[in-house]
Amino acid sequence: MNSFPKIFFDLVEIISRFPGIGKRSAERIAFFILRMKPDEVKQLTAKIEEVYQYIKPCRICNNFSTQEVCSICSNSSRDKSIVCIVEEPKDILAIEKTSQYRGVYYVLLGSISPLEGITEEELNLRKLLNRLERKEIKEIIIATDPDNEGEITAQFLIEKISPYKVKIYRIAIGVPLGTQIEYIDSATLGKALIEKKAVLDF
Amino acid sequence: MNSFPKIFFDLVEIISRFPGIGKRSAERIAFFILRMKPDEVKQLTAKIEEVYQYIKPCRICNNFSTQEVCSICSNSSRDKSIVCIVEEPKDILAIEKTSQYRGVYYVLLGSISPLEGITEEELNLRKLLNRLERKEIKEIIIATDPDNEGEITAQFLIEKISPYKVKIYRIAIGVPLGTQIEYIDSATLGKALIEKKAVLDF
Repeated sequence: MNSFPKIFFDLVEIISRFPGIGKRSAERIAFFILRMKPDEVKQLTAKIEEVYQYIKPCRICNNFSTQEVCSICSNSSRDKSIVCIVEEPKDILAIEKTSQYRGVYYVLLGSISPLEGITEEELNLRKLLNRLERKEIKEIIIATDPDNEGEITAQFLIEKISPYKVKIYRIAIGVPLGTQIEYIDSATLGKALIEKKAVLDF
Repeated sequence: MNSFPKIFFDLVEIISRFPGIGKRSAERIAFFILRMKPDEVKQLTAKIEEVYQYIKPCRICNNFSTQEVCSICSNSSRDKSIVCIVEEPKDILAIEKTSQYRGVYYVLLGSISPLEGITEEELNLRKLLNRLERKEIKEIIIATDPDNEGEITAQFLIEKISPYKVKIYRIAIGVPLGTQIEYIDSATLGKALIEKKAVLDF
């Protein structure tokens, strides 16, 4: 294994920390970088530094932004009285792709995870509670992940927010579109039965 | 989609050019980079630049090296009269892992690919032919990939090298260890039958 320079394996080691990248993929990426053109490598490292330096959490909602206030919070056509709470900025991307939402967001930058030692105190809730106190918000939609941490976090948010007497919603949890009932995991199917929706009522 | 800064998507676009990385993976990696600590990001970009700046093709065999001559070519215990020809430096890594080889290598930095417009002239053969002319080599092992390009390249190498009257080998092509005959693709199985080896002869 000493047929290659040590710095090559140093780079492989760093790349293999990326999410979803194993050692083999990291090696392939390192080889790819070695075969890039000089200006391409310069562009890659400069862009990493630029993104890291200029993208910061939005002062209002914690979304990624190059400005103090992100493009959603500063968009006058968005309804600031409706706030969707998500765990991570990438969740905003997913929701924006649906084109079904016209409110603003609030990013927790995490979820409550006893296993990882993330407690209620570490959720970035202060700025949201301040806005609730100032009665700027009428409606909260909780869009944490439908997993254990997300559900614990959702329960905690409901407790924290309910004293402010605003409408609180949780996004619907149930069977995903385009799937077949027989292939859906039983936890999801069970939840879909519990959360069943009336379509005709006598 | 304009909920995120443009430079974020610039970085995603660059990362998605990496081998085996789709747009979703590239997004996850870009998010990961944004969540790294400042010294980790510095380490990442510095290591990319370092690897790119200091790793160059070995003067003798084209293997990646931080020295003018790579660690294999400069290793006095390796047999310089046996040369294994591979397409890419990463093939050296794979062969070294077997611990079955004590000769040196020669890296073509490519293979003949009519589809990609890579012709015989673009194979880096000159330095190898010079060594054959100086009668420094007794044995050549061709270890190009067992695919179309690799086979065309192997045939071309045999033509080019045969005038020098050295032993030429091709690595064995056949059924891989640890597999089951019923699951092996028919091209490989057919080749394994053609290349069958006598075990007992009367």
